[in-house]
Amino acid sequence: MQMVCLPRLSRVAVCGGTHGNELSGVYLVRELLKVKKGVMEKEEEQEEEEPLSVLKVLSNPRAMQQCRRYVDTDLNRCFTHATLNGLTSGTVPYEMIRSRELNAMLGPKGRSGAVDLVCDLHNTTANMGLCLIAYSDCDWICLHIFRHLQRKMPDIPMRYIHFEVSNKESYSLDSVGKHGFAMEIGPQPHGVARSTVYTAMKAGVQHMLDWVCFFNSGTLFEGESVDVFTMIKHIDYPRDSETRNITAAVHPHLQDRDFCPLHPEDPLFQTFSGETLRYKGNEPLYPFFINECAYYEKGIALSLARKRRVLIPTIRVQTEQEQAAHVQELASEEEE
Amino acid sequence: MQMVCLPRLSRVAVCGGTHGNELSGVYLVRELLKVKKGVMEKEEEQEEEEPLSVLKVLSNPRAMQQCRRYVDTDLNRCFTHATLNGLTSGTVPYEMIRSRELNAMLGPKGRSGAVDLVCDLHNTTANMGLCLIAYSDCDWICLHIFRHLQRKMPDIPMRYIHFEVSNKESYSLDSVGKHGFAMEIGPQPHGVARSTVYTAMKAGVQHMLDWVCFFNSGTLFEGESVDVFTMIKHIDYPRDSETRNITAAVHPHLQDRDFCPLHPEDPLFQTFSGETLRYKGNEPLYPFFINECAYYEKGIALSLARKRRVLIPTIRVQTEQEQAAHVQELASEEEE
Repeated sequence: MQMVCLPRLSRVAVCGGTHGNELSGVYLVRELLKVKKGVMEKEEEQEEEEPLSVLKVLSNPRAMQQCRRYVDTDLNRCFTHATLNGLTSGTVPYEMIRSRELNAMLGPKGRSGAVDLVCDLHNTTANMGLCLIAYSDCDWICLHIFRHLQRKMPDIPMRYIHFEVSNKESYSLDSVGKHGFAMEIGPQPHGVARSTVYTAMKAGVQHMLDWVCFFNSGTLFEGESVDVFTMIKHIDYPRDSETRNITAAVHPHLQDRDFCPLHPEDPLFQTFSGETLRYKGNEPLYPFFINECAYYEKGIALSLARKRRVLIPTIRVQTEQEQAAHVQELASEEEE
Repeated sequence: MQMVCLPRLSRVAVCGGTHGNELSGVYLVRELLKVKKGVMEKEEEQEEEEPLSVLKVLSNPRAMQQCRRYVDTDLNRCFTHATLNGLTSGTVPYEMIRSRELNAMLGPKGRSGAVDLVCDLHNTTANMGLCLIAYSDCDWICLHIFRHLQRKMPDIPMRYIHFEVSNKESYSLDSVGKHGFAMEIGPQPHGVARSTVYTAMKAGVQHMLDWVCFFNSGTLFEGESVDVFTMIKHIDYPRDSETRNITAAVHPHLQDRDFCPLHPEDPLFQTFSGETLRYKGNEPLYPFFINECAYYEKGIALSLARKRRVLIPTIRVQTEQEQAAHVQELASEEEE
């Protein structure tokens, strides 16, 4: 099998509170900020190595303070190339200002100065277990981290979700890093901290940082195949044509069955008058983000994915010589 | 056993959206407003009777529109005698204005013109099943309705919660009626509608209205004994003494175990660093509203109740003669 050598991951960012009412990440990052060093970073143990720098970031302090998803606009949609680099005039939404601050701190997005890996912590009201959500199905770092977490946390249902969006169009905070993903855990109501969800997220972050340390110190990670869920489309709630109010809820047979195949003619919604509405697609797909609270306003009752097996290659960190060559290569690319 | 004759219940109010992000009541009242008459009210069937008047009220439209609990202040704390009748000056919070509108529509609280029964629909993130919450443990109407619902909906865990507060100090919308209770159903995240929760609430309201029709038409309801949970005290989250941020979540052993007895030394919280904190009370009590989202800001991680058996008498509606005498009695009371 193919072996891929990848650059060292020297700077990792762990971000919480990108949505101010998704509390596991808020409390976990606050806790990590208390633990100055040692416990999470294992710096002491590896004196011969360059220490791993872990930035802990509370992304949207104003929204956190109000325990709301956002103040003016969804911060986690503000990291497109256009939004980060466009001209602004008049009253600029708070989150647009904040996205530029974060891009200055962790990016610039798409440039060599960006952090190597962004792990952005989220919660969902959907019954999704732990998901890594990324824009790539061939980012071997993200996919190997995913496999490591799956192995280390066998009791937690875990999936890798892939949103097929170009780097320029990618909109979320994790897109600012050279590698990045959202770690999404549910079900948990927004504005609530459940101890089991917090503990799973803490373990997930710890295992992710452990993996980065293993990788940096030269561990070879064997290739294997991984299930990837690629987002195909969103489905909105049935709505009243005049008021735009929803007229149905997710059907009880579908509620909480994220990642169980949805077949044509399966129950999809139950109207508030009691009628069953069925899925009219022409192929079975995998639903996720079923009845996510924050997506009512976005017109998404659930998303549908196709499942594929992806072969990931064996990887190891580049040697110092390889790294030096790689840096030169990147620099000349940026000059162009 | 004692038999109690009570006045006819001519006007009933069903209210939703008192908290704008508790969606079962919002969608149920919207649905009831569409069904103009007949289905819920059974007016046609009982031509010899005076029809039952059912007012359907969306209590806090501004909060509903923003899908928030409230806009300026918690509407369901604005119905004390003092808040309804005090002088106002300067900028008056929206909910204080709205509480006076609702008091004019459904009250005035404590007066003979008030509606006979207020059923105010709520959701909680706590695993509480269906609860009726009232200020009295001797309101035979509320307690008989509770028993009727228990019998008609055997699959839904159901409890009667009693907050020991005087009528003058009572603060919630349901206190405006001559009789009243909150119908609280969970678990459901705020801002989310789950079909099973909606369906349970719809059935609960239908059975409540059925009971009122039976009662008004002379049905005799046998006395019996009922379990009542009387609220004793609230417990706050452990908090950082400087920032006031919470430093622990409800312990996994306690989470979702509403109405299961909590004994001294049982696990109560798990701190974000992993430590278990135990219940230091000196008697077993019944926890409820465990980890309710909206109570973080009120400093309530859970409430504790004592369970008692209450004997409720056999009741029937007053005859026309009894009713006439009763009305005279009330009128002379009000003149005093």
